[in-house]
Amino acid sequence: MEFKSKIKTIEWVDTYSKMVDQTVIPYEYKFVNITSGEDMFNAIRNMIVRGAPAIGIAGAHGVILFAQEGAEKFDTREEFVNWLIEKAENMKTSRPTAVNLMWAVQKQIEVINNSKSDIKGIIEELKTNAIKLENEDIEINKKIGDYGAEVVPKGATILTHCNAGALATVGYGTALGVVRSAFAKDNTVQVFADETRPRQQGARITTFELAMDGIPVTLITDGMCSYFMKKGMIDMVVVGADRIAANGDTANKIGTYTVAIAAKYHNVPFYIAAPLSTIDTSIKTGDEIVIEERSREEVTHINGKIICAPEVNVINPGFDVTPHELIAGIITEKGILRPDYNKSIAEAFS
Amino acid sequence: MEFKSKIKTIEWVDTYSKMVDQTVIPYEYKFVNITSGEDMFNAIRNMIVRGAPAIGIAGAHGVILFAQEGAEKFDTREEFVNWLIEKAENMKTSRPTAVNLMWAVQKQIEVINNSKSDIKGIIEELKTNAIKLENEDIEINKKIGDYGAEVVPKGATILTHCNAGALATVGYGTALGVVRSAFAKDNTVQVFADETRPRQQGARITTFELAMDGIPVTLITDGMCSYFMKKGMIDMVVVGADRIAANGDTANKIGTYTVAIAAKYHNVPFYIAAPLSTIDTSIKTGDEIVIEERSREEVTHINGKIICAPEVNVINPGFDVTPHELIAGIITEKGILRPDYNKSIAEAFS
Repeated sequence: MEFKSKIKTIEWVDTYSKMVDQTVIPYEYKFVNITSGEDMFNAIRNMIVRGAPAIGIAGAHGVILFAQEGAEKFDTREEFVNWLIEKAENMKTSRPTAVNLMWAVQKQIEVINNSKSDIKGIIEELKTNAIKLENEDIEINKKIGDYGAEVVPKGATILTHCNAGALATVGYGTALGVVRSAFAKDNTVQVFADETRPRQQGARITTFELAMDGIPVTLITDGMCSYFMKKGMIDMVVVGADRIAANGDTANKIGTYTVAIAAKYHNVPFYIAAPLSTIDTSIKTGDEIVIEERSREEVTHINGKIICAPEVNVINPGFDVTPHELIAGIITEKGILRPDYNKSIAEAFS
Repeated sequence: MEFKSKIKTIEWVDTYSKMVDQTVIPYEYKFVNITSGEDMFNAIRNMIVRGAPAIGIAGAHGVILFAQEGAEKFDTREEFVNWLIEKAENMKTSRPTAVNLMWAVQKQIEVINNSKSDIKGIIEELKTNAIKLENEDIEINKKIGDYGAEVVPKGATILTHCNAGALATVGYGTALGVVRSAFAKDNTVQVFADETRPRQQGARITTFELAMDGIPVTLITDGMCSYFMKKGMIDMVVVGADRIAANGDTANKIGTYTVAIAAKYHNVPFYIAAPLSTIDTSIKTGDEIVIEERSREEVTHINGKIICAPEVNVINPGFDVTPHELIAGIITEKGILRPDYNKSIAEAFS
């Protein structure tokens, strides 16, 4: 039985990108149309769209938007292509940690470089490729979900951190794709969602999308995971990823590493669920992953109101790296990769 | 050199209890006067006063307030005493986890039981005893601070969770008493404060009181501790306690246990700082400690605004228990107790 999610996070519509505005969830569920390349750059940076696979698609859409603008600006194909590739390369820098963004934009750059068409033709090829990436993302997510569901025990409670759900992808989810596929087979499966400070994607987005799809979800604060693990109430942890090194070290939302340590201490299996496009085989270990530092206001303010002494210092890393030795498996569209990851990752790419 | 804190959290003034209203920090620093026993019961339950040692004093003040009311109500000493002891016993139930509350109220019950005086005399004896407990609390905190400062490395960064500071006690602090004493000797010492969701005592109260006393403090979210430990930026962890079992297992604010596991994983020493009155030798292990479950709104709302899907489930344990094997030492007014805690705790009480 296949699980039908109600959510479509991002899609290309004729001449623009239509996406769920994730900054207003759970207060509103509304769509915004992004109609220029610069607006897309800002939508990614300001997290109107977030989640590694979704920002990959957003980046691919951004290249089409710039192409449409370039077609107005330039008369010669050469000028157009040079300008567009510069804009595409710049789009990769809108957020530094998630590799899917670089991967998807690069796929569009390859379309441009391989094209034999004129300007109008290039734009059509970019659109076709973006829609192909969207459809592939859902198919890949469903495969991840189905492989992952095989290791979910009957009646399991699955802890997740941040949101690696339909709203982090085109429409099914990676970590929450595993949940959806497991729930379709066994509706006694349930989720514990970490709040995920500072931006509260777990509270705001994960609870919202699971409630929308009718999957039972319990919200806990980030410090509580060990308490529930010790009580035997958590059967497994599944989270997404923003970048995975060749040895399995995984960058994901800040706080993930703390959950992984707690899981190890309590012998709770800790899984990553991510498409192969999240794996960056060009880096050997997690030490090479750039960690984005975000603004102090994300920590000091909630919903616009300060929560601390105004003169406090803040350091706000957006991500942390969970070392491979804490990871029971990496659930991909080609099956569950197991340690030794250097070997299993290399095999998945061969 | 002794550290002078600007903060006096709670004190008995003639006929009422004067306390800092901790629910409005950091927005306001204001005092409230509690003038009836029932108001004190509610002030403890609703956390206008919080922190294990401070609510002990608050409970002791509550007994005086009931005594003042009883003096108006009853003509005979016997009726007065029976009623007052019933009210005092009930005061112990205003919060279930912190043992200092039961300890301090019991000290007042002993005053009543041992008194040879008339009603008026009993009230005077209760006041004298409460003021003695207040002064002792500060003296004990300073001893804890001085013992603790001996194990703080030069230039250390000390991570703390929740608020075990001046605002959790009468005026110096237990965990932050260690910080104050260490800072008095070495002003390159600094603090990293966990936000401490759900009630954010770290963000709201710890940053506020350290800023007020001029001690450098960096606010982090609860999930970040492991990230900074891995980077070698945390030299030690010091937290307070709400109840300590005879074997050293320690109940403290929810999230403490997660920090302790992360500290163990990174070989960062994890200390408890607490007066001996926090140790409940009547219980053998932490399994016997009652964990208060608090309201769902503490998790689902921040500053009155919902942060999640409204239909989400919530479990909100107020405390967790850190097992003794994760604790490097328990810093008390009689020195630092070390494992084996069954032995060192028994010796401290002998």
